[in-house]
Amino acid sequence: MGKPTLEFWYDFASTYSYLSAMRIKPLAERAGVEVLHRPFLLGPIFKAQGWASSPFNVYPTKGRYMIRDMERLAAERGLVFHSSDPFPQNSLGAARVALVALEEGWIGQFTPELFKLEFGERCDISAASTLEQAVRRAGEKSELSLDFARVFERSGADDIKRRLRAQTEAAAVAQIFGAPTFRTADGELFWGDDRLDQAVVWARKL
Amino acid sequence: MGKPTLEFWYDFASTYSYLSAMRIKPLAERAGVEVLHRPFLLGPIFKAQGWASSPFNVYPTKGRYMIRDMERLAAERGLVFHSSDPFPQNSLGAARVALVALEEGWIGQFTPELFKLEFGERCDISAASTLEQAVRRAGEKSELSLDFARVFERSGADDIKRRLRAQTEAAAVAQIFGAPTFRTADGELFWGDDRLDQAVVWARKL
Repeated sequence: MGKPTLEFWYDFASTYSYLSAMRIKPLAERAGVEVLHRPFLLGPIFKAQGWASSPFNVYPTKGRYMIRDMERLAAERGLVFHSSDPFPQNSLGAARVALVALEEGWIGQFTPELFKLEFGERCDISAASTLEQAVRRAGEKSELSLDFARVFERSGADDIKRRLRAQTEAAAVAQIFGAPTFRTADGELFWGDDRLDQAVVWARKL
Repeated sequence: MGKPTLEFWYDFASTYSYLSAMRIKPLAERAGVEVLHRPFLLGPIFKAQGWASSPFNVYPTKGRYMIRDMERLAAERGLVFHSSDPFPQNSLGAARVALVALEEGWIGQFTPELFKLEFGERCDISAASTLEQAVRRAGEKSELSLDFARVFERSGADDIKRRLRAQTEAAAVAQIFGAPTFRTADGELFWGDDRLDQAVVWARKL
């Protein structure tokens, strides 16, 4: 039998996904659980719920609360957090690069680095320069030689675009309605960074 | 200086408020924090956000998730949980009785008993017989002699009705958008049972 697995569904524009991206690796490793990264786009999911933007924009009171909540949680965890401007950022290009990283085995290094650039260092993740920096840092962490020009070109390939659309459709089919969401091999969904610990324990018991 | 305080804003129809109602007392006591009960009605708050019902009905995928999430959390905590039918229940009468309990000093006993009847024993909290049972149990726990007929009559008084409306308006002014919400003396909001522990720690530091 292989290791138990846990799917980590996230959108690079999602603030609470940042919290999970910064802690899922050590947490899962300690539990002997393998993380399967599932970058997807929340936009189509939100649209299906009738929202033209993030619910944090559609419901501004909730949006203001989210920022304060994130500030408090980030402070507790020793993380820097600035809400992005604009919020949400356009995460399409980031998700496509993440799918390249997934096929090449460095998504576990790329994901937290890009989130840190976005919410820790105020970078625009739709800019190629930000993606380049995240790829460079992921290369250093993974000790892989990553050529950004090649990665970026690959991220624009038709099959990568199709894979991202399929991944987002799979999220909808799996009844995922927000991010981060964790899914165990038996199909249980755990929504939000608040459920990450519970999801890891669940995955481990399977 | 008095004890630090923590406001506990809840609606009796709210599933996650049940989780908090079942644990806030020992948690706050251990921390030396006094709980200030703030029963209110979510209906007008949801209406202001454009929802004709609970968001768990407006967004059925989220509603199905909530039930599964509640089942898992309740099981972890050794609580019985059945979603109410209908969901949400009409909590108007319950909130009015709670305001009587608040003025008479037995709301800390009444609140968990009514939630247990609703989500643990499938009772209809809009029925006088359910309210009566909760009042009886609260009387036993608090060692007060509570006459339900008197309490019920008092709960229909104009000033109690006005107080509930004022409390619900105060929730909106405080930017409360869901339940349970915890508010500390410095005005910080903590939304959801997931934030109860953090709210108690925050209250204690003030």
